[in-house]
Amino acid sequence: MLHPQLAADCVTIGNLPICTVLLNAQFNQFPWLILVPRRTGCRDLTDVGQLEFPMDALKAYTKPTKMNVGALGNMVPQLHIHIIARTEGDACWPKPVWGHAQPQPYSEKHLAKAVAGYRTMLADILEPKLDS
Amino acid sequence: MLHPQLAADCVTIGNLPICTVLLNAQFNQFPWLILVPRRTGCRDLTDVGQLEFPMDALKAYTKPTKMNVGALGNMVPQLHIHIIARTEGDACWPKPVWGHAQPQPYSEKHLAKAVAGYRTMLADILEPKLDS
Repeated sequence: MLHPQLAADCVTIGNLPICTVLLNAQFNQFPWLILVPRRTGCRDLTDVGQLEFPMDALKAYTKPTKMNVGALGNMVPQLHIHIIARTEGDACWPKPVWGHAQPQPYSEKHLAKAVAGYRTMLADILEPKLDS
Repeated sequence: MLHPQLAADCVTIGNLPICTVLLNAQFNQFPWLILVPRRTGCRDLTDVGQLEFPMDALKAYTKPTKMNVGALGNMVPQLHIHIIARTEGDACWPKPVWGHAQPQPYSEKHLAKAVAGYRTMLADILEPKLDS
């Protein structure tokens, strides 16, 4: 079960064996994925293996200056791991997006395009059946 | 070689097989460790294994509400991983410390105490020879 805040803010891209990949739909100015473990009882980033698969895919797809990875969860207790591709000169550069980025939700049209793009990007590693 | 900014801001606690453990000495209001890989060529959080050892130790030692883990590196390009024990009601709660916490450096006396405490905390996993 996805935490209501994550469900409200994100769109499901698909499932990896270990986690569900979400797109943060509130910030169209950054390639911003959120991973949520599929098994319960995960509490910290180090409880989740194989982070490198979606991270490397996003990196190859967006060719960023730097990947930002973080697990905070002070407000939403369900473990979720932010993976954000940052580019020099982006809307918050070089500050962290957390606490600095202003929400700028995707339009419906751009969201559908972005979701399709991320699904293609992750096609090699996503499980075939999407429960989106 | 430690990046000059990390060298200026931090004190070395000791070495693990994979990374050096630093204490962020600029923020005495949080238990805030920074891990820097000892081998070169690491660029992202997922290039560093065994994060769970220092993280679990800090968690057991400080009993926080939530561990915050992040690899940003937009400003300091050398890979460094923040591990921060957050407690409900702490100086920034529930916001991220990045971009929100005001620097509040340890006094010399408190720093010596804190370093000794962290060395004891990590005694089981630190390599015996410290190069501090």
